[in-house]
Amino acid sequence: MIGIDWGTTSFRAFRLTADGAIRDRRSSARGIMAVPDQRFGDTLRDEIGPWLAAGEDRVLLSGMIGSRQGWVEAPYLPLPAGAADLAEALIDIPFDWGQVKLVPGIAGHDASGIAEVMRGEETQLLGVDALMRAGGLACLPGTHAKWARVAEGRLVGFSTHMTGEVLAALKGHTILGRMMRDGPVVDAAFDAGVRRSADPGGLLHHVFGVRAEALAGRLDDGASGSYLSGILIGHEVRAALDGGVVHLVGSSELTALYARAIAACGGMAERHAADAAAVGLARIGGLARWG
Amino acid sequence: MIGIDWGTTSFRAFRLTADGAIRDRRSSARGIMAVPDQRFGDTLRDEIGPWLAAGEDRVLLSGMIGSRQGWVEAPYLPLPAGAADLAEALIDIPFDWGQVKLVPGIAGHDASGIAEVMRGEETQLLGVDALMRAGGLACLPGTHAKWARVAEGRLVGFSTHMTGEVLAALKGHTILGRMMRDGPVVDAAFDAGVRRSADPGGLLHHVFGVRAEALAGRLDDGASGSYLSGILIGHEVRAALDGGVVHLVGSSELTALYARAIAACGGMAERHAADAAAVGLARIGGLARWG
Repeated sequence: MIGIDWGTTSFRAFRLTADGAIRDRRSSARGIMAVPDQRFGDTLRDEIGPWLAAGEDRVLLSGMIGSRQGWVEAPYLPLPAGAADLAEALIDIPFDWGQVKLVPGIAGHDASGIAEVMRGEETQLLGVDALMRAGGLACLPGTHAKWARVAEGRLVGFSTHMTGEVLAALKGHTILGRMMRDGPVVDAAFDAGVRRSADPGGLLHHVFGVRAEALAGRLDDGASGSYLSGILIGHEVRAALDGGVVHLVGSSELTALYARAIAACGGMAERHAADAAAVGLARIGGLARWG
Repeated sequence: MIGIDWGTTSFRAFRLTADGAIRDRRSSARGIMAVPDQRFGDTLRDEIGPWLAAGEDRVLLSGMIGSRQGWVEAPYLPLPAGAADLAEALIDIPFDWGQVKLVPGIAGHDASGIAEVMRGEETQLLGVDALMRAGGLACLPGTHAKWARVAEGRLVGFSTHMTGEVLAALKGHTILGRMMRDGPVVDAAFDAGVRRSADPGGLLHHVFGVRAEALAGRLDDGASGSYLSGILIGHEVRAALDGGVVHLVGSSELTALYARAIAACGGMAERHAADAAAVGLARIGGLARWG
């Protein structure tokens, strides 16, 4: 089968063997925002045409492709949800060159009763074997970072932190960004930011310190972005940690930063490869009723 | 004398009587960012020419006009600082049509040793009679909200919260703004945001709830901006409150919102007129050595 993690800004496709191994892969920048006139079917055929021509017939999609801005809007599935629940709830999408099914997103509430949603991350979580076997807490860092709890192979709760998007907005559209020089992460500054997040005063005060410390000549332009990133990730991690191991899923750069922050906050982290989406798609696809 | 609060985006001038009353006023959008080619002297003459022609000779400036991007960069004065300390530290600026002096900003550290700076707010604080008489905690809401402690007529500590600027960045440059309809503050949504700020999960999680609640159909597009504003101001107020009365200084719209948030967080607030800058300029100017 073919599994596709089709997000807002990226398209990642995997050609999978019957036992879920990755036989081939391709990715492009044709996320749903880059598809003109809602031509999702044509885009899909463009991207995976050679695999279809080679005999693949089953295509499973996950991610924002199932949102209101995507191909077909899939209603959210409620918690708790595991691979069997998702496989049961797949949405069929008409497509002339094969069977296409869509994994729905998941809706829940946080402990205070405020709504929560995810699309795509549920599939990645199902692809982390250690988490599916033993349960526990997982974190998928990014634009909208997700922290999820898994028990007995099912997702039972999750919460979202807008860390990545807030960081980009602060860098790009506030006075804090004006004195930042882009570059690799400066570990000492990142660590100082993570420590700073434990101080009194709150996040809105801590971020002003990026400017004040720079004005005072105590923070280098090349380090201030790392310091700001440490403040935000530190706030996120402190609010989400619960004492157990955190399973980190994502790019090696981001999971390395988060592992660093989690350790500094007294937690433990285990990093997993970013191909969790492929494993999750294979797992759900293996339970689906194909024609 | 003439007192001028010259900020980044606004210019507010007051013609003051010998006992500090406002005889006349004018304001414009010619903040320091709107002055071309550093022509601050020409701009000043344009703005207050008629008052100079009428015989005024003493001009006292406060605000970002004393920053690196302003007319002359004035070194920050250290804490503690009162009107006499500031009057002692005024910077003379050459000007062909009268005497011009500049109130320096103030630098300090928060309780954790991180740098803090203000330019202009020190003059507004000195203009709040109740605060100068009895001391206490004051808040000047805005782009970079300041919370300051005054004892025996001197500023002894302060901290900055980037609430206004973060709110603008989130509304203008994240997914949260996409579903917001501008309009007057919706009190119930603002109050819900302030309550939300007391929940576990942290600010980066709470702001995502603005989107999730809207997706769930539980938050109206016309109310989501007020809800977001309540979340941010709620976080600021909870981090800054200390049990006593808060003296609020600023526009009536902003101080009304903050008074509402402070009451919801169990505090007490006293609102003061936005003309505190004029009173503060008169007070400092009255202690200055004019030629």
